[in-house]
Amino acid sequence: MNTLGRLFSVSILGESHGHAVGIVIDGCPSGVSIAAEDFTEDIERRKPGAKGTTPRKEDDLPEIISGVFNDKTTGSPITILFRNNNTRSTDYEKQRAVPRPGHADFVASKKFGGYEDYRGGGHFSGRLTVALVAAGVVAKKVLHKKKRDLKIQADILEIGGESDLEKGLQKAIDEKDTIGGIVECKVSGLPIGLGEPFFDSAESLLSHAVFSIPAVRGIEFGTGFLAAKMFGSKHNDAIENMEGKTTTNHSGGIIGGITNGNELICPQSFLLLN
Amino acid sequence: MNTLGRLFSVSILGESHGHAVGIVIDGCPSGVSIAAEDFTEDIERRKPGAKGTTPRKEDDLPEIISGVFNDKTTGSPITILFRNNNTRSTDYEKQRAVPRPGHADFVASKKFGGYEDYRGGGHFSGRLTVALVAAGVVAKKVLHKKKRDLKIQADILEIGGESDLEKGLQKAIDEKDTIGGIVECKVSGLPIGLGEPFFDSAESLLSHAVFSIPAVRGIEFGTGFLAAKMFGSKHNDAIENMEGKTTTNHSGGIIGGITNGNELICPQSFLLLN
Amino acid sequence: MNTLGRLFSVSILGESHGHAVGIVIDGCPSGVSIAAEDFTEDIERRKPGAKGTTPRKEDDLPEIISGVFNDKTTGSPITILFRNNNTRSTDYEKQRAVPRPGHADFVASKKFGGYEDYRGGGHFSGRLTVALVAAGVVAKKVLHKKKRDLKIQADILEIGGESDLEKGLQKAIDEKDTIGGIVECKVSGLPIGLGEPFFDSAESLLSHAVFSIPAVRGIEFGTGFLAAKMFGSKHNDAIENMEGKTTTNHSGGIIGGITNGNELICPQSFLLLN
Amino acid sequence: MNTLGRLFSVSILGESHGHAVGIVIDGCPSGVSIAAEDFTEDIERRKPGAKGTTPRKEDDLPEIISGVFNDKTTGSPITILFRNNNTRSTDYEKQRAVPRPGHADFVASKKFGGYEDYRGGGHFSGRLTVALVAAGVVAKKVLHKKKRDLKIQADILEIGGESDLEKGLQKAIDEKDTIGGIVECKVSGLPIGLGEPFFDSAESLLSHAVFSIPAVRGIEFGTGFLAAKMFGSKHNDAIENMEGKTTTNHSGGIIGGITNGNELICPQSFLLLN
Repeated sequence: MNTLGRLFSVSILGESHGHAVGIVIDGCPSGVSIAAEDFTEDIERRKPGAKGTTPRKEDDLPEIISGVFNDKTTGSPITILFRNNNTRSTDYEKQRAVPRPGHADFVASKKFGGYEDYRGGGHFSGRLTVALVAAGVVAKKVLHKKKRDLKIQADILEIGGESDLEKGLQKAIDEKDTIGGIVECKVSGLPIGLGEPFFDSAESLLSHAVFSIPAVRGIEFGTGFLAAKMFGSKHNDAIENMEGKTTTNHSGGIIGGITNGNELICPQSFLLLN
Repeated sequence: MNTLGRLFSVSILGESHGHAVGIVIDGCPSGVSIAAEDFTEDIERRKPGAKGTTPRKEDDLPEIISGVFNDKTTGSPITILFRNNNTRSTDYEKQRAVPRPGHADFVASKKFGGYEDYRGGGHFSGRLTVALVAAGVVAKKVLHKKKRDLKIQADILEIGGESDLEKGLQKAIDEKDTIGGIVECKVSGLPIGLGEPFFDSAESLLSHAVFSIPAVRGIEFGTGFLAAKMFGSKHNDAIENMEGKTTTNHSGGIIGGITNGNELICPQSFLLLN
Repeated sequence: MNTLGRLFSVSILGESHGHAVGIVIDGCPSGVSIAAEDFTEDIERRKPGAKGTTPRKEDDLPEIISGVFNDKTTGSPITILFRNNNTRSTDYEKQRAVPRPGHADFVASKKFGGYEDYRGGGHFSGRLTVALVAAGVVAKKVLHKKKRDLKIQADILEIGGESDLEKGLQKAIDEKDTIGGIVECKVSGLPIGLGEPFFDSAESLLSHAVFSIPAVRGIEFGTGFLAAKMFGSKHNDAIENMEGKTTTNHSGGIIGGITNGNELICPQSFLLLN
Repeated sequence: MNTLGRLFSVSILGESHGHAVGIVIDGCPSGVSIAAEDFTEDIERRKPGAKGTTPRKEDDLPEIISGVFNDKTTGSPITILFRNNNTRSTDYEKQRAVPRPGHADFVASKKFGGYEDYRGGGHFSGRLTVALVAAGVVAKKVLHKKKRDLKIQADILEIGGESDLEKGLQKAIDEKDTIGGIVECKVSGLPIGLGEPFFDSAESLLSHAVFSIPAVRGIEFGTGFLAAKMFGSKHNDAIENMEGKTTTNHSGGIIGGITNGNELICPQSFLLLN
C-alpha cells in the first residue's frame, strides 16, 4: 500500500504528469502551526533546476486542502497537494514502446497491465518526493511542538566516489550522465527506547521508510558494512555510566533494535536515474 | 509490534529463559502439509553448538499447538512453540547490575522500566530466531504448494574480512571473540511485479524483515554501495526484449521498488554478539 | 484513523466548510473504467435539497485528482475531491459558545483542544458522506469488472415508526424536526466464504463500516434482535443440499462470521441530526 | 485476520479439540501484575457445566507462556494457552457428512476446502471465547494500573423474551433447546474523547469487537432501534454545562463517534447455538 506509519500515518498519491501529487497525513495532533510558507525552505532544497539536476521547473506551492484551520492543525487528516503545472506530455507514446532502462516503465506496465500512467514515470516518478518533503515538514513541526530537541541532518558524503562534491557533480555534467553518491543521515537528541524488539526494530522502521525513496540502493547503521570485518569486542560500545553513555558509537545509536540515546547514524547509498 | 506481514502474517513471542519461544502464523492457506520433521533441516542449520557458535544446546523440537490437523494446515492460525529446556538462570542478577555492551540489556531496562525478563536477553535474545526459521519453513511450503519454483539461497560471502570462511572463523576462535561477516541472499524465480511503488517497495519490505534479525548492520540491493561510485549509464541494466531480459543485473532484481524478474540479490552485513 | 479496509483501502478527508471533502482509495485494481459522470446517479440519491432534507445545495462534482488515466484506473491511489462551494461560515462563533446537542461540537472541542474546524461540524459533518458514496461507486465498479453479479440494495423500511414513508416524512416536516428510521441493506450473489472466524467476521467488518456513517444507532443481521426471543431449533436454518441451500434465512446470510451464500440481510436504525 | 486492536492487540488461536486454545497480547505495558489465579473469577463466569449450559467440563487453567516474569508483564508479547483436556473426538466423521444447521460446519468446509479441523467446530468453536475472557482480564488490569476508574458491567436483560431469567432458562431446559437473549453492556467512567470521526468511531470499534463473539445477532447504542421512531428534538441530549453533563443519555455515551463522558450503553442480542 501507499501508506506508512501507525500513529503518524502518511499516504502518498499522484502522478508526475497528472493533475497533482500529494500527501494525506493522519494522526497529526491538533494545534500544530502550519502555513504554506513553512514548506518553502525544505522544498527549495529538493527543487529541480539547480546545477546538475533535471531542468523541469515547478512552482511547488503546497495547496493545503484539509486538516488545517486558522493556520493550525485540527486533528483531522491533513491533505497537501502540489499541482503539476509544467507537464509536457508529448513523446510519451515512444517511451511506451521502448521502456527506459533503470526506470519503472517496464515493471509498471507488467504490474498494472498497461493501464499505468506512463508519462514521466507516473506514480513512480521522483516528482512524488515533493510530497515526502511536505510530510517531513509537518513531522518536524510536531516534534518541535512536543519540545523534542532533535537535530536531524542529512549530508552528502560523496558523489561519484569524490568527497569533493563539486568535483563529483562536474564529472556527471561533463559526461551528460547521472551519478551515484552517499548520503549520511544523523539524528541527535533521540530518547532512549524507540523501536520494538524484532519486527518493528528501529532499523526495520527506518529502512522501510528510506527505501521508499527512489534511487536508494543500500542502507547501514553505525559502522554498517565495516562491522563485517570487526571483532565483537572491538565493535561493542562500552557503557560508561547509568545513563548509557558510551565512548564509541559503532552501533550508530541503535542496540537490539532500540535507540540507546546516542546519535543515530545512518548512511545510505543512492543512484540518480537518468 | 511483534507482527510482520499483511497477508501472511507472523507474530513472534517468548523469551530466552522463559517457558518457550514461538511464532503464530496467520493467513496461511489451508491444505499445506506440515509435520514436525519438516522443520529439522533448517533448524539444524541455525543450531548453536557447531564450531564457533554458542555452546547452548536445545533440542529445538517444534510443538505445533494450533492450525494443523491431520498434518495439513487448516486455514486458522498456526502456532509453533519451542520449549526452553536448557536454561540456566543463575548469575543473572549480576548481569542486571552491569548491562552487557552490544546487547539490549540497557535499552530494554530503560524501555520496560526494569520489568523486562533480563535473563539471557529475554525477548531480545537470538534464541527467538528459531521461531523465524520455523516461519520460513512454513512460508517455503506455501510457495511450494503454489508451484512457485523459487530458489532461495543465503551464502556467507566473508567472515572477518576473509572469503576463506574457515580462516575467518578460526580468527574469532583464536581470539575467543565474536566476529562480523557478510551474508548474501539470492532469490531466483520471482515473478515480475512484486512490491508497490513507494512505501511498500520490495526493498522496503525486505529490509524491514531483514533488520528484525539481531546482528544485521547493513543491507544493499544489487550493486548497493558500489552504485555510489557509478554513472547512471553504466548502472542501468539495458532491457533486451519484451520479457524484460537484461544482460547485467546491477539493480539486483528490483526496479522502482518492483521485482523485474531478474535474480534478487541482497547482501547483508552482520556482527554476531558476544 | 480515518482509513478503512486492508486490500481495498479508503481514507476520508476534509471538512464541511473547508476547501473540500474527499476520499483516497488505495488497492483498486488497474483497468477499471471511471469517469466523473459515473458518480452522478449515486450522488444525486444522497443530495441535500430534496423534500425533508437540509437546504444546503452543492454541485457535488467529483474532481479526480489521481489514479485515473484515460478514464481507467491505473493501480495507483485514486483521489477524489468534492469542493465546498456553498459554504456560509457566518454565525459560527455563536455555535462555539453553545455546542449543539446531538452533534459532535462538544466532544470535538474536548478531543482536539479547541483547534477543530467547528464550522458546520467540520470533519464530523454529514457532508463527508459524499466521499463515502464516491468510494462506493468505485467499489461497485470493481465488483462489476470482476464479474461479481451482486445485487446491492438499501431500502428505507420505516420513518418515524411509519412504513408509509411519505407519512413519516410529513410528520417531521410538520414538526420542523428531524426524525429516525430503519434502512435495510440486502446483498444477493455473495460467494460462500467471505469473512474470517472471530475478529474479522463478516458482521464485524460490516458493522465497523456501517457505524462510520453518522446517525446510525443500531445494526442487526438476519432476525437480529428478534433472535433474542427464539429457540435455537426454530432459528437455525436447515441445510437442504450440498450447496448449502436453506429454506429459511434467519441468520441473514452469515454463519459463524462467514457468508453462506444466502442473501445478506442487515437492517440498521438511524436518527438524522437536526 | 485473527487479530484485533492497534495499540493493545490481541490474536486468537486454537481449535476446540486440538491441543489448546489461546491468545497472544501485544502492546501491553510492562509492570502489570498477572498471575494465573487472576483469571479464575472471570473464567468461572463463562464456564460450561452450569445450569442450562453445555455439559463439557474443562479445567480452564491458564498457562502463561510468555510476556510475564516474576508475576509482572515484561512489555513483550503475552501468550496464554488453555489446554484442551476433555476432548472426545469420536463421531466426528458423521458430523462431516451432515453439517449442523446454525453452525459454521458448512461454510468452514467450503472456505477451507475440507482441511478445517471439523471436530466440535474447530477454530469456530465457542470454546475459543475462553481466550477472549483471558484477554479481557489483562485489559482490565491495564486499566486498573492506569488508574482508570472504569466500571464495566454486562447484564442479561432477558432470555427467551422473559426478563425473569430463571423462567426463560427453564423454557429452554424444558424444550431441550437453546435460546436467545439480550445482554446489555455498560461502562461508566470513560474519558471524553475516545474514538475517531468516521472509520474508527467508538461504535465501529466496539461493534467490530462484539460481533467477533459467536452468537451475537445485533447491537445498538443508547436508544438504538427505538431511535427509529423518535424525533431528533426528543432524542438529542441537552448539554447542561461546560463539562458536557446531560440530563438524558439517549445517545448511550457516544456522540459523533466519540465518547462524551456519559455512561456507555450497548445492548446486544444473542442466540446460543445448539
